[in-house]
Amino acid sequence: MSIVMSVNAGSSSLKFQVFEMPSEKVLAKGLVERIGLNDAIFSIKVGDEKFETVTEIPNHTRAVELLIDALLEHNIVHSLEEIEAVGHRMVHGGEFYSESVVATPDAEEKFEECIPLAPLHNPAGLVGYRSFKEALPNASHTFVFDTAFHQTMPKENYIYPIPYQYYENDHIRRYGMHGTSHKYLLERLAEIEGKPVQEMNIITCHLGNGASITAIKNGKSFKTSMGFTPLSGVMMGTRSGDIDPAILIYLQKKYGYSADELDNILNKQSGMLGISGISSDSRDIENAIKEGNERAILTEKIYIDRIIETVGGYYTLMGGCDAIVFAGGIGENAINVREDVCKGLKVLGVEISEEKNNVRGKEQEISTPESKIAVWVLPTNEEVMLARDAYKDLVDGKAQ
Amino acid sequence: MSIVMSVNAGSSSLKFQVFEMPSEKVLAKGLVERIGLNDAIFSIKVGDEKFETVTEIPNHTRAVELLIDALLEHNIVHSLEEIEAVGHRMVHGGEFYSESVVATPDAEEKFEECIPLAPLHNPAGLVGYRSFKEALPNASHTFVFDTAFHQTMPKENYIYPIPYQYYENDHIRRYGMHGTSHKYLLERLAEIEGKPVQEMNIITCHLGNGASITAIKNGKSFKTSMGFTPLSGVMMGTRSGDIDPAILIYLQKKYGYSADELDNILNKQSGMLGISGISSDSRDIENAIKEGNERAILTEKIYIDRIIETVGGYYTLMGGCDAIVFAGGIGENAINVREDVCKGLKVLGVEISEEKNNVRGKEQEISTPESKIAVWVLPTNEEVMLARDAYKDLVDGKAQ
Repeated sequence: MSIVMSVNAGSSSLKFQVFEMPSEKVLAKGLVERIGLNDAIFSIKVGDEKFETVTEIPNHTRAVELLIDALLEHNIVHSLEEIEAVGHRMVHGGEFYSESVVATPDAEEKFEECIPLAPLHNPAGLVGYRSFKEALPNASHTFVFDTAFHQTMPKENYIYPIPYQYYENDHIRRYGMHGTSHKYLLERLAEIEGKPVQEMNIITCHLGNGASITAIKNGKSFKTSMGFTPLSGVMMGTRSGDIDPAILIYLQKKYGYSADELDNILNKQSGMLGISGISSDSRDIENAIKEGNERAILTEKIYIDRIIETVGGYYTLMGGCDAIVFAGGIGENAINVREDVCKGLKVLGVEISEEKNNVRGKEQEISTPESKIAVWVLPTNEEVMLARDAYKDLVDGKAQ
Repeated sequence: MSIVMSVNAGSSSLKFQVFEMPSEKVLAKGLVERIGLNDAIFSIKVGDEKFETVTEIPNHTRAVELLIDALLEHNIVHSLEEIEAVGHRMVHGGEFYSESVVATPDAEEKFEECIPLAPLHNPAGLVGYRSFKEALPNASHTFVFDTAFHQTMPKENYIYPIPYQYYENDHIRRYGMHGTSHKYLLERLAEIEGKPVQEMNIITCHLGNGASITAIKNGKSFKTSMGFTPLSGVMMGTRSGDIDPAILIYLQKKYGYSADELDNILNKQSGMLGISGISSDSRDIENAIKEGNERAILTEKIYIDRIIETVGGYYTLMGGCDAIVFAGGIGENAINVREDVCKGLKVLGVEISEEKNNVRGKEQEISTPESKIAVWVLPTNEEVMLARDAYKDLVDGKAQ
């Protein structure tokens, strides 16, 4: 039995879970928010109890100290040495990594080379890792990349139709994101169905604030809707997804927007928020629809149609699939979104049961026995994937 | 019997055909190229004979004079008065026009309002129209818009997931292009199949230097792959089609490109040319493939996959279709492109006959009797559509 942590560090936040492995029992989980501010919030949940502190947390190092003190205080561990491994979510591994890797100085260096590809996320991941490495120098640390699962895409599915030099010199290509989530969904469904992973042909829809859809062919990522960055693909809460690229050029010429302003408009002010003018939260859109708000109705239609079109495109491109999976905050909870998407997939032979679909945040097959394609709701679990990879490296390391 | 002309004016070119209507017999056709230069080229084809002159043609007015002189000289007409109507290709009609319109001063004014939406094409159309109006003041002139056919798209298929103000204030939305071609293909297939247009559910693939794919539902454009501009959608000879919009932002930050430079890269240096580094012409790509060129092979794979994905997406979004049509330079002539696209559509029930598909530039059904979806090659004919609309307005005008 080993204690393994999963860590997801943002620029001003830190999410963690403590697992008992290999049982995958969650011993504690928590979140540090507003790092860098005087009124940062540290919260930890142990069993059914939740503890919250508002205090000054100037940096990630201090956040990690607080976190580890809390683990000792709540008797999750009795000494730091008990935490044997940590899995760190590292976002962008570029073309270097198609799987997780032990955090060696070489791995750190390669990861730093990927900073230009994820200028906001990668530095945060590094800061988080370094803080934990300092606090737990004897633990085994593992980097888990959000891009790794998608490195199996065939070249024709990741090269963009732009001058080839931008791939060769600037590494501009489709990378995809949410890889850890899509991989979890794949492995979980294979487990449920009792099928070898390499026989799985499925489409996984991770629909949260960010959203991506992945065609998984023979157990490997074949194509995914996020691209060079997480802006691409289907429409999201505040992100546009794919649009005519000439719109950027037009707006820049007309309004003199800088690249950063365009970035802000398309990443922060678009998507559901942009069309509706109401909110980026699909629950607010639902409420506005109930009041008959026209723009909210339009927002949902566009959101749903883009998912239908993407799933239909991937279904065709991969030569058919056996299952479609819904996950993420919206995928797991928005009953009507699943219903409308599946109605739109009827021509592919999809049929769901209204009764089975009446579920939130719970594993359930929602298709009817007659449906040509199985449809599942599977709550995703990126944290357990981090812990699994960290635990695997720990065991492999001990075996050496 | 009336003589009607079709005119397609570019910034430095002018394409025309002379029809006998309503028989639609082509009496002559020709092209003026390099307008504005000392060595402009004027060519006209009468029957099987082709005549070409290289001369100074400073502007469109002079081009029209030359053209009309040639029509008299070759006895196509005996006096200018015989040309009763002219149909002008006007590219972008914005949201004003869902069909062709008689060229009144009001129509001209509204068309001028659409110049910002097609800053290169609309002024050329106007110059062409004004030159003909001057030369043929008594003829009936009709504006035929490339966008008009797509004005039937439902709102959810033309609004982009960006701040709504850009639709309201700046008219940024999906317009689509090649409308005259898609409409021709629709009407021609309905005629061949003896079906009312409003019962047609088809996907039309106009694959030329520019390329667009349209889902036509119940005889109306439902969604089309070109968007706010012709840059969008599938990959083309030199245009990227849809890419992660963040790529523009990244390139601009890294290289300091201006909006115009980005425009040039994505419209002129991308697509087949960009990936292959060889050529924007699919025939050159074919030849390079025969020599085993890796980048050429990759180029064709991406080109084909993007068509497959788009057709599959539209098939799903429109709830299935009865026929798929190939047209345009590549669609009509590239046997292997059609073969590979159709192979990729097998999961939708598409099956073509190798023998029937062995055809170039000729009307032919290429699907097998077993195919769930009929597949057709139909040479498109935008010119006859211009002449038809102009002739219709002429007859209607006379009837008044």
